[in-house]
Amino acid sequence: MATQRILDFLATRRPNGPCLVVDLDVVRDNFRAFEKALPDSRIYYAVKANPAPEILRLLAAMGSSFDTASVAEVEMAMDAGAPANRISFGNTIKKERDIARAYQLGIRLFAVDCVEEVEKIARVAPGSRVFCRVLTDGEGAEWPLSRKFGCVPAMAVDVLRHAKGLGLDAYGVSFHVGSQQTDLSAWDRALSDAKTVFATLAEEGIVLKMVNMGGGFPTRYLKDVPAAQAYGQAIFSALRKHFGNALPETIIEPGRGMVGNAGVIKSEVVLISKKADNDNVRWVFLDIGKFGGLAETMDEAIRYPLVTRHDGSETAPCVLAGPTCDSADVMYEKTPYPLPLSLTIGDEVLIEGTGAYTTTYSAVAFNGFEPLRSYVI
Amino acid sequence: MATQRILDFLATRRPNGPCLVVDLDVVRDNFRAFEKALPDSRIYYAVKANPAPEILRLLAAMGSSFDTASVAEVEMAMDAGAPANRISFGNTIKKERDIARAYQLGIRLFAVDCVEEVEKIARVAPGSRVFCRVLTDGEGAEWPLSRKFGCVPAMAVDVLRHAKGLGLDAYGVSFHVGSQQTDLSAWDRALSDAKTVFATLAEEGIVLKMVNMGGGFPTRYLKDVPAAQAYGQAIFSALRKHFGNALPETIIEPGRGMVGNAGVIKSEVVLISKKADNDNVRWVFLDIGKFGGLAETMDEAIRYPLVTRHDGSETAPCVLAGPTCDSADVMYEKTPYPLPLSLTIGDEVLIEGTGAYTTTYSAVAFNGFEPLRSYVI
Repeated sequence: MATQRILDFLATRRPNGPCLVVDLDVVRDNFRAFEKALPDSRIYYAVKANPAPEILRLLAAMGSSFDTASVAEVEMAMDAGAPANRISFGNTIKKERDIARAYQLGIRLFAVDCVEEVEKIARVAPGSRVFCRVLTDGEGAEWPLSRKFGCVPAMAVDVLRHAKGLGLDAYGVSFHVGSQQTDLSAWDRALSDAKTVFATLAEEGIVLKMVNMGGGFPTRYLKDVPAAQAYGQAIFSALRKHFGNALPETIIEPGRGMVGNAGVIKSEVVLISKKADNDNVRWVFLDIGKFGGLAETMDEAIRYPLVTRHDGSETAPCVLAGPTCDSADVMYEKTPYPLPLSLTIGDEVLIEGTGAYTTTYSAVAFNGFEPLRSYVI
Repeated sequence: MATQRILDFLATRRPNGPCLVVDLDVVRDNFRAFEKALPDSRIYYAVKANPAPEILRLLAAMGSSFDTASVAEVEMAMDAGAPANRISFGNTIKKERDIARAYQLGIRLFAVDCVEEVEKIARVAPGSRVFCRVLTDGEGAEWPLSRKFGCVPAMAVDVLRHAKGLGLDAYGVSFHVGSQQTDLSAWDRALSDAKTVFATLAEEGIVLKMVNMGGGFPTRYLKDVPAAQAYGQAIFSALRKHFGNALPETIIEPGRGMVGNAGVIKSEVVLISKKADNDNVRWVFLDIGKFGGLAETMDEAIRYPLVTRHDGSETAPCVLAGPTCDSADVMYEKTPYPLPLSLTIGDEVLIEGTGAYTTTYSAVAFNGFEPLRSYVI
């Protein structure tokens, strides 16, 4: 996944310290693959995955819409050239003054998952479109979602009815099947729930128009994942099965699937050591860790591919850890990572598939280390 | 723990958004309590706990030494007025060029836990003092240490012998009993290991001089913890027991114990909701979470005291979560947190005991949210 452009950049520029390099050509290809796989869906790029201005400008120019988590992200999307009608305020947890500010900026599409949030929107963003997030089970996802977002389908009916009653446009339903979802049937189960909400409200004369199918589209780490095309077919079949010929508008919100495989982090081996002479497992310490951008290694959830100049030679299991004085700053310990025996201090290690959820996750100054630098080429 | 000065500051300044307020009077009292409890130990404040310049300047002026994790932290301590001979480069994982830079700045005291690190120091920081970190079991600690730092005592002997052979000053042994350690016997067990290393090397004519007893001194969260005085007595007894009349120089490295109870985070309730009508547990969403500075709620490890204007009234269990679109951004879910039934959206919530390991842990811009602001008064 380290493209020739990324390798050339690193060879020529030789940046000091850990950094992320993102290849815009890959982002462009990913956007086109989503367009082709789901031609009837609008693509709302999840800005939180990587808000680099170059990425947002490219996607805005290609016609993408944007899913935002905060007023700051709304402003970033607008600065990149996206008009307000292509921006969704997709966080279900918003301060009323932030909703008001987004409304002032022209935003008219908001996520909710309870009547309390509907009431805030009715007060400061009158007439706006709202969609209610429904809980899904997240089964099959590598980074499963907790119950944090969404409500049960029966409650979604109440929430949208309440929105309608307060003069809002009860616009649709959203769900999220869980990040890095590789079980194609997850969309089928979620669309079945969505259809239930549509049907129940239709009986009362409230006609929903949109299903926001969220993200969850995986990027390739160590295991092969189904291609966008396979997702597109599975989703289209499920839509047909549950909605027949009355297909709703649909939205997808790829984040990781749009930029994950476009980025590579360059890091350096700081130390290789053992804890006792008879230990089987070596400890390999990199100059980046859980607090420097690799937060998604939490609970060893995401297992990134590592590339070294010794690949192909004999390997042995290693614990992989970051450079801070924090004992929680260990990436892979329960399942050690096989790395070449010939790996040495000072070697470069490329961490692939790191275009999403790295730069903005990194700590502002933990242990005095600066946040992850990024180059978008 | 929210002192009157902190409450007055919040009432007068009414800062917008979440922020940490640190009361320097409490830091001053903590420093004096450590001095009194362990009058024969030198205090090396763990800069990583909170590197605010005001805190570093106060402690430098009071005569504190500093434990640093990076060149940036070395420079912060020097900027605050600490001379180089009062600074330890306490991270066992250092790039060789960072060791060289620290040496240029005058640093002569370095932590190691393997021969590979000793060799770097011998090359670029000749003649320096090194101390070798020994693994401890961390039993009894709320934030247990993994095996990331240190080596077994038998290997520490090899490491220090190797240092001596390369012309370094084999200076001593360090250990860390685990953060927020409330079991006073942990120091006894660790000092017994330290004595073994001293005795073994003494037989070869290598005379170690110092024991770095690390941090681990707890701050009070929800449970009462032993006072500094109790730690001092337990540690002094253990020193006597293992070293007799040949007491080594000793160092302590309080971080959390120095600043944890000096800080309070002001936050706001963004949303209170349920996932289904018949749910027993409410979800309370604050404007700060795991990525905004409360990283130590990871695995629900640290349970901070929360203060609201409704305290004393009837409570019910809540899941407490942060404001980001990340489902991992949940602080307390396995063990719900009792909060007043009358708590409402917009209410202020004070999170006490947050002076340590909050500001610098916060993500640089996750979901577009800015890092935690801090005021030191």
